[in-house]
Amino acid sequence: MLVINQTRHLSRLRQARRLRIQQCGLHYDGRNRVSNFWIPTGGISKKPVDGQKEDANDLLIRGGFLRQAYSGVFHLLPLGLRVQDKLERLIDKHMRSLGASKVSLSSISSQELWEKSGRLNEGSEVFRFNDRKATRFLLAPTHEEEITTLVGGLTTSYKNLPLRVYQITRKYRDEPRPRQGLLRGREFIMKDLYTFDYSIPEALKTYQAVKHAYTQLFDELKIPYLVAAADSGNMGGNLSHEFHFISSKGEDRVVSCSHCDHVYNEELADGKTHHFGESSQSNATPGFQTEEKLDNFAPPTVSTGMWMAFSHDGNTLLRGWYPKFSMQEGFTEPVERHVNSHAVKAIATAAGIDLDLSVENPLEKWVARVQSRSSDQKPRVLDLYDSQVRVYQRPPLSDLLEKANCTSADIEYSMLDRFPDTTNKLSLIRVHDGDKCSHCADGLLTSNPAVELGHTFHLGTRYSEVLQASVSVNSALLEGASPSDVKSSKEQIVPMQMGCHGLGVSRMVSAVANRLVDSKGLNWPRVIAPYEVVVVPGKGLDSVAEQVYDCLTSGASPSVDTLLDDRDKGMGWKLGDADLIGYPVIVVVGNGWKKDQTLEVQCRRLGVKEDMPLDRIPEFVESLLSQL
Amino acid sequence: MLVINQTRHLSRLRQARRLRIQQCGLHYDGRNRVSNFWIPTGGISKKPVDGQKEDANDLLIRGGFLRQAYSGVFHLLPLGLRVQDKLERLIDKHMRSLGASKVSLSSISSQELWEKSGRLNEGSEVFRFNDRKATRFLLAPTHEEEITTLVGGLTTSYKNLPLRVYQITRKYRDEPRPRQGLLRGREFIMKDLYTFDYSIPEALKTYQAVKHAYTQLFDELKIPYLVAAADSGNMGGNLSHEFHFISSKGEDRVVSCSHCDHVYNEELADGKTHHFGESSQSNATPGFQTEEKLDNFAPPTVSTGMWMAFSHDGNTLLRGWYPKFSMQEGFTEPVERHVNSHAVKAIATAAGIDLDLSVENPLEKWVARVQSRSSDQKPRVLDLYDSQVRVYQRPPLSDLLEKANCTSADIEYSMLDRFPDTTNKLSLIRVHDGDKCSHCADGLLTSNPAVELGHTFHLGTRYSEVLQASVSVNSALLEGASPSDVKSSKEQIVPMQMGCHGLGVSRMVSAVANRLVDSKGLNWPRVIAPYEVVVVPGKGLDSVAEQVYDCLTSGASPSVDTLLDDRDKGMGWKLGDADLIGYPVIVVVGNGWKKDQTLEVQCRRLGVKEDMPLDRIPEFVESLLSQL
Repeated sequence: MLVINQTRHLSRLRQARRLRIQQCGLHYDGRNRVSNFWIPTGGISKKPVDGQKEDANDLLIRGGFLRQAYSGVFHLLPLGLRVQDKLERLIDKHMRSLGASKVSLSSISSQELWEKSGRLNEGSEVFRFNDRKATRFLLAPTHEEEITTLVGGLTTSYKNLPLRVYQITRKYRDEPRPRQGLLRGREFIMKDLYTFDYSIPEALKTYQAVKHAYTQLFDELKIPYLVAAADSGNMGGNLSHEFHFISSKGEDRVVSCSHCDHVYNEELADGKTHHFGESSQSNATPGFQTEEKLDNFAPPTVSTGMWMAFSHDGNTLLRGWYPKFSMQEGFTEPVERHVNSHAVKAIATAAGIDLDLSVENPLEKWVARVQSRSSDQKPRVLDLYDSQVRVYQRPPLSDLLEKANCTSADIEYSMLDRFPDTTNKLSLIRVHDGDKCSHCADGLLTSNPAVELGHTFHLGTRYSEVLQASVSVNSALLEGASPSDVKSSKEQIVPMQMGCHGLGVSRMVSAVANRLVDSKGLNWPRVIAPYEVVVVPGKGLDSVAEQVYDCLTSGASPSVDTLLDDRDKGMGWKLGDADLIGYPVIVVVGNGWKKDQTLEVQCRRLGVKEDMPLDRIPEFVESLLSQL
Repeated sequence: MLVINQTRHLSRLRQARRLRIQQCGLHYDGRNRVSNFWIPTGGISKKPVDGQKEDANDLLIRGGFLRQAYSGVFHLLPLGLRVQDKLERLIDKHMRSLGASKVSLSSISSQELWEKSGRLNEGSEVFRFNDRKATRFLLAPTHEEEITTLVGGLTTSYKNLPLRVYQITRKYRDEPRPRQGLLRGREFIMKDLYTFDYSIPEALKTYQAVKHAYTQLFDELKIPYLVAAADSGNMGGNLSHEFHFISSKGEDRVVSCSHCDHVYNEELADGKTHHFGESSQSNATPGFQTEEKLDNFAPPTVSTGMWMAFSHDGNTLLRGWYPKFSMQEGFTEPVERHVNSHAVKAIATAAGIDLDLSVENPLEKWVARVQSRSSDQKPRVLDLYDSQVRVYQRPPLSDLLEKANCTSADIEYSMLDRFPDTTNKLSLIRVHDGDKCSHCADGLLTSNPAVELGHTFHLGTRYSEVLQASVSVNSALLEGASPSDVKSSKEQIVPMQMGCHGLGVSRMVSAVANRLVDSKGLNWPRVIAPYEVVVVPGKGLDSVAEQVYDCLTSGASPSVDTLLDDRDKGMGWKLGDADLIGYPVIVVVGNGWKKDQTLEVQCRRLGVKEDMPLDRIPEFVESLLSQL
């Protein structure tokens, strides 16, 4: 209704606050109040019936942090969004310390581009769609293709490097089995950082800087974490680390040593034996070992097990012979061993066989294959022998042949007890707690379920080559000269050395909730708590609560992110709600105030419950928060 | 590689800053430096060749704010993201003043839900996709369905109302013709606020509060804007307002009066005449008027034009008779008039005909229809007569019948000179600058191209009824009692009264750029500028520039968002770049400093260029910024 001109601004701005309060019909005085903040805990804040166990994901829902919209797709409610926003600000801070610039790439990407990089195929878990002109798009689960194209088009010289760009955006994955709330969703928030350097040594500096920033970031959460290596630092390979929380909800297993810094994700097992002091170079000639040659480092095997898998091409049955029960040094009971399918897959891949681990009845599939065999390709059997089991001198095939109703001439048989093209023996089994560390003389290994929250990854030229993201570099620099020493102007065009470094934002919210949950509810580290402190007044004590609020938010000490629970509910209900939601500190304005003007400060995580006068509150609260 | 325990935290944190600087390989000292911030202006910052005119969207690209990824899909680069982030913070501030809580709903919504609300059909401009289980999803362009379902499931009593929730998220639209950069994209950021009340009077209070918050927000941008009404305040109808910038890039046209507060979007024309002082109740009996009865208020028509359109069902040809040239009071030259297709469509709709305005040759289509006619439905012709033209006593059909090779018996003919079911005459034409205002005695109208940036909309129970979002309300409240007077406990279940209130975040970035661009580059209002001030040092003056930076960011006056252009480039190049990017204020550390220790403060928008010593800088810069 108005044509605003500039001269009318100032008086308008002066009127603003008063009008605002009059018009909005809510109690708005600049203080954070629960009554102005949508926390739907009403009907659904009832505890579950006895015997039903709630986990952190249930509490995130009951506490009013989020709601599931569809399987693996969530709406964040105000409390959940505040946690996520604080986490994003924490990430921003540490990305900024890296000199990384923040961008925001489109969620829409083109299938054509992904075909160029070779990442789009039948099995790709991406949502695809066409626009009205039948252009084929997808919802990006990650942005290597887009950022490489973007940076490649804008960067021509090594002088613009290092370049570090990141974003915190929604990502999408057509996950077959969405589960565990935010831990494995189909729409989720991720931070993805992409780095660009002109040489491998420069990229290695960047890699270390990123890894350092990640440890700084995780340190601020003040929750123990593991940094698992994917490779022992061989830059030519896929240098990569993963950041994990140990958690019963975890779908990864991380193995760590009690003595040295050897920490790795079980799925990165390469199928080779690695033993402290063993030099793979000095090994004997490859070949099948007899009983006498059993691995010196291996603990005695009590019984041998057999494990089967089938190949993607439908031709090969793989059998893994492994120690089903074996002894551990220093223990008297044998332990049951399990096959590490990742290790077996790695060996099979090296032997040219692509295993399909999702096949449930490998033997039946293979028998069917034998029965329908044609003349051009014989059905195949490959036996793998773990270094801890005896290699059979003659292939144990009679059972198989009988089942398939064929003879050994009808099939092609082979066996392996060394990793293809190496002298390394095979390791098919998962680590069991108490196994000896293969990296140091003294340590024992533990294997823990863990949630992967971040990774650092050196990509090299995987994307920059195929998408033509190159820079010109002074040749002397590539030969190792330092920039100040460069005299000649001879330049060379090289693809950029890239890194990608992810952090799961949504899953971190869930993982932190899981890590700190207790019988009363959630608990948040200070740095991502929806509010740091909640002030809970009893009836008629609202103005005292406001005093407490003001003294926490505007005193001499640094301002504390405080919330005032001004709802017209009983003290017990409000305290239960505060426990459920997991504010790090609660200040109770109750009977203590009426009696002798004291307030009760509660901190469940530190086991603190202490009465004190108002003037001690800011310092005491800060001292608690600094530990959380 | 590390298992972190809590005791190691503190010493680690102390080492952090030093390590960080050592490791990252960039100049990081906490100051905002262009060298640490990715502004790709290199190759693409060349000016276009002579004669090629750049608009603001070109400058947003050349200045390094954004890049197009696909038609209507954009990547935001760091500068663009900073502008967008500041705009989002501005919106947060004003939403907070409304007591609105921030949520973040999923971008994925289900087709099934949208079918329930009736918003999904053939013509819906939404991207659709299936997941691996063939569940039908869509990328939400807006979230009425989701929020109604969510709030409906969590809110049961009027005591939880008013409820105001908003989000700022990516939205998607399968736009047929994406154009003008961020102004009309297929992936874009919008703020959407949804309001819930238990009665229409309560919803009206909310509506006014939102409208007030919007004016406050637009006032802070300090750019003139228009608030256009869609309806004169009839709450039963679709009460709605639009917030516009006048802009040559605009695809809307907003009509405003020089005298009164009558402002409206031309597309909201309802096809009825509205004249100051006219009472539609006291009009003569409806019927066709003769020459003598021509509208008293209408200016004399010089010649009559005819305009045609065809119906969606392929049966009806609509002809609109309108004043092609007519006089304006006080002017001596006749003006050419144009049909307002929105007005014609509104009349046709009221007459039961759904016009398809995209048909390019209505007459040919209709002739084809006549030729293929069947016996069950006659092809139809509807003539509309603008109040300013003479109604023909006999339908002027001869041309038509000849073309279609049929007789008048083969077709069904009707005509209208009043709006169906009212006594209002028809207005088919667009407003021409200088036309008299229909709301006041004195004003003249202007029609301007405009960009719609926001709207407020009272939805009523459009979604809450069909998606069953209801609350129980004390009956006395519904009858108008104030909450404190309510005695009885009789309750009633009613669907919630909703409002939806949007702000185009992406398009606002583009619209602001368009509004303030000049021959040298962009200009940003202080509140959404990527940085408020850039400090540009000449060679060898870096440490002085750091002093200026520090004095702007950490002096006694409030901290100014400052950037240091520490790139190794000439002063002229850097100043040109600063002009292009549009920082509100530039502080030049150049020859003045070498001569007499003065700095030059530039503000292009205010035409300021002034030399002064360092100690005057903070106050002077603040005085400039407060005007921008």
